[in-house]
Amino acid sequence: MRIEVICTGDEVLTGKIVNTNFSYITQKLEDFGLSVRWETTVGDDREDLLLAFQLAGQRADAVIVNGGLGPTVDDLSQEIAAKAAGVDLALSEEWLAKMESYFARRSRVMPPNNRKQAMLPAGAEVLDNPVGTACGFAVNIGKARFFFTPGVPRELRRMLEDQIVPRLLAKTGAHTAIYLKRFHSYGIGESHADALLAGVEALAPDGGVKLGFRAHYPQLETKLTVRGSDMNDIHRKLAPVEKEVRQRLGNFVLAEDDRTLEGVVLAELQNRGATLTVVETFTSGQIAARIGPLPGAENVVRRGIVAREFREVCAAVGFEGAIPDEITRETAEAIACAAQRTTGSTHAMAVLIDLDEGADRIEFAGTVCLAIATSSDVASRRSRIVGGRDWVRLGAVEMGLDCLRRFLQGLPVRERIDFEKAEEPAKT
Amino acid sequence: MRIEVICTGDEVLTGKIVNTNFSYITQKLEDFGLSVRWETTVGDDREDLLLAFQLAGQRADAVIVNGGLGPTVDDLSQEIAAKAAGVDLALSEEWLAKMESYFARRSRVMPPNNRKQAMLPAGAEVLDNPVGTACGFAVNIGKARFFFTPGVPRELRRMLEDQIVPRLLAKTGAHTAIYLKRFHSYGIGESHADALLAGVEALAPDGGVKLGFRAHYPQLETKLTVRGSDMNDIHRKLAPVEKEVRQRLGNFVLAEDDRTLEGVVLAELQNRGATLTVVETFTSGQIAARIGPLPGAENVVRRGIVAREFREVCAAVGFEGAIPDEITRETAEAIACAAQRTTGSTHAMAVLIDLDEGADRIEFAGTVCLAIATSSDVASRRSRIVGGRDWVRLGAVEMGLDCLRRFLQGLPVRERIDFEKAEEPAKT
Repeated sequence: MRIEVICTGDEVLTGKIVNTNFSYITQKLEDFGLSVRWETTVGDDREDLLLAFQLAGQRADAVIVNGGLGPTVDDLSQEIAAKAAGVDLALSEEWLAKMESYFARRSRVMPPNNRKQAMLPAGAEVLDNPVGTACGFAVNIGKARFFFTPGVPRELRRMLEDQIVPRLLAKTGAHTAIYLKRFHSYGIGESHADALLAGVEALAPDGGVKLGFRAHYPQLETKLTVRGSDMNDIHRKLAPVEKEVRQRLGNFVLAEDDRTLEGVVLAELQNRGATLTVVETFTSGQIAARIGPLPGAENVVRRGIVAREFREVCAAVGFEGAIPDEITRETAEAIACAAQRTTGSTHAMAVLIDLDEGADRIEFAGTVCLAIATSSDVASRRSRIVGGRDWVRLGAVEMGLDCLRRFLQGLPVRERIDFEKAEEPAKT
Repeated sequence: MRIEVICTGDEVLTGKIVNTNFSYITQKLEDFGLSVRWETTVGDDREDLLLAFQLAGQRADAVIVNGGLGPTVDDLSQEIAAKAAGVDLALSEEWLAKMESYFARRSRVMPPNNRKQAMLPAGAEVLDNPVGTACGFAVNIGKARFFFTPGVPRELRRMLEDQIVPRLLAKTGAHTAIYLKRFHSYGIGESHADALLAGVEALAPDGGVKLGFRAHYPQLETKLTVRGSDMNDIHRKLAPVEKEVRQRLGNFVLAEDDRTLEGVVLAELQNRGATLTVVETFTSGQIAARIGPLPGAENVVRRGIVAREFREVCAAVGFEGAIPDEITRETAEAIACAAQRTTGSTHAMAVLIDLDEGADRIEFAGTVCLAIATSSDVASRRSRIVGGRDWVRLGAVEMGLDCLRRFLQGLPVRERIDFEKAEEPAKT
């Protein structure tokens, strides 16, 4: 089945907004084993919209059109859809009633120009939008089934998942269920993960499991797309592969599916009634900022401390003793222990960074020394991250959070990662 | 002149990467008064690439193609360009020599597969790429001039600005220079700014100045695009408009052109040899993190303090006295003064936030009380920001930084903004 996407709107065409709707649509379809073959973006222009609809209708079996369903004069999708389909616009009493009740529930009167949103090509199939007033619909143009969706991301997502994906899957004729299993990791590059996981697809009885990756530094997402006759069949196929992936990626798996690294760290701390202090230098608050705003973090994040001068770090955590000349694992341990004692939190992490001198450049590196302390235990790690100021900063934030996860989960804090220049030997 | 853009590559088509190259290209052209009319994305597929080139060659006068110039087998742009142009591929000795010297300067031998990057359609015009090995080029296909560009953003940007924009401007026949003047503001919505600036375009002698906006919450960018016969003519036209915009937006202009809010704040602090302490609650380090990693900030950012519990905030800044029941402007002032005294920094800012209870929702709000103190002065502001947890967090970060800018520039810290629910009366 050949699928195309048409994105409409001057804001996207002029780059006022980056087209994240398209990447969302195509990723979501990929997750269900469907591929987008061609994408077209045109503005709010009658002539270009008509041509885009006609061309796609000649080439494709299914077309998803995004945008242009709003109430204003520059929203042209229904009008041009009707023209391209060779039918008139007709009022959908069903959708008009739905909109009126939508406004009534919010104690508001529907403005007259919203009526335009209930004008659909005659004979169109309505695609429900439970979270907005833009009515989705499907019509045939040329040899393709066209699905019209709203430009508001929240409304698009709901409609795509609930209304369009099932129709596309039915259109493929394959009566299969699809499931996406995801693993998030930090410290393994995409090609390394690909090599580590060689052959795992073959472990599924009767096949049906496809391995894929999505890299967004510093994290890597490993995806298993599973097709089966139903969810039981899917779980039967997935189980041995899932287990093997979890085992081969091992300690590097920081979260699965919709969970996040900061969410896992927060949950681990909450589970033991723990509190946290974070001491930062070059990352300047970015580690604390990943956990701090999460719901529930108000009872966990006791204190965050930022200082760029090492002398000031010492003062802020009440470190007593001679101030060391250079940053080492031992220094980080001393700072983390002092921070834990001073603030009375159960856990304290210090992430100290010794940055290279000079201008930013691709070889620019930073040496990270980090330590995690409780009243009775301390663990630490040293690493050199290369790749420019931003790369060092992003890497250090992720390494700090991931080491904290490892510490809380009883895993080794020191394990070689692909993004460091080779861990230097401990000085102890 | 009708301009189209074709983006190529499976990574973009499958949504593995969001297509920011397209929004960059179209924005950059808009800045020079050129408009993109149509965009097409296709994968690394011979048939689709050829069709996309042919269709665009029938419709457009100029086409920018992005991607597919790399050394690997899935990089097909040169091959398909030659086919669409009806010519053979030929080795560019000029580019081969350039690549060999590129590798030699890095003390590396050129891998054999890079030779493919010097195979161009016969008769193609070379577009220089001073920062990579992908050779840009221009050929005619159908009635359009095609410009082929690399997918690596850094290489694309350089080539677009230095090589392609001048050729497009020359092609328009208008022998004009173009200049873009930008103002960044916080606190004014797009429609408000539009109303405030009504009629400014008319102040340019002989016209030639176009007003535009780009909103990215919480900041707004106001753009003046100026066309003239040369830069003297441009400055003559721009001067009265620029002055008027600066006056009407007034205290809300936080930076111009390439400067940033955090960069302006850092520069103001550096200019007076000042040091800064930032105390944060719900923003959890995000204010410090905007300034802290900037080059030079190591001598300015003395300390950042994060705590979610108000009692802990007091402990961290050495606040002595009864702990108040609720967060007010006076509390924020007391905390900022205590932080300034305790850390010995010349300036201290406290941004305290009282969040609504319950789940995240569009009506979810936070009351921000912020204060800025020196050893002899203190200023404060109270504001209620509505729009969900993330909206409150982003708004509070920006408000904190902008109030600090205002304080340092001798401007009023309290001035009504469009994003707050109406400033509540001061309790003093």
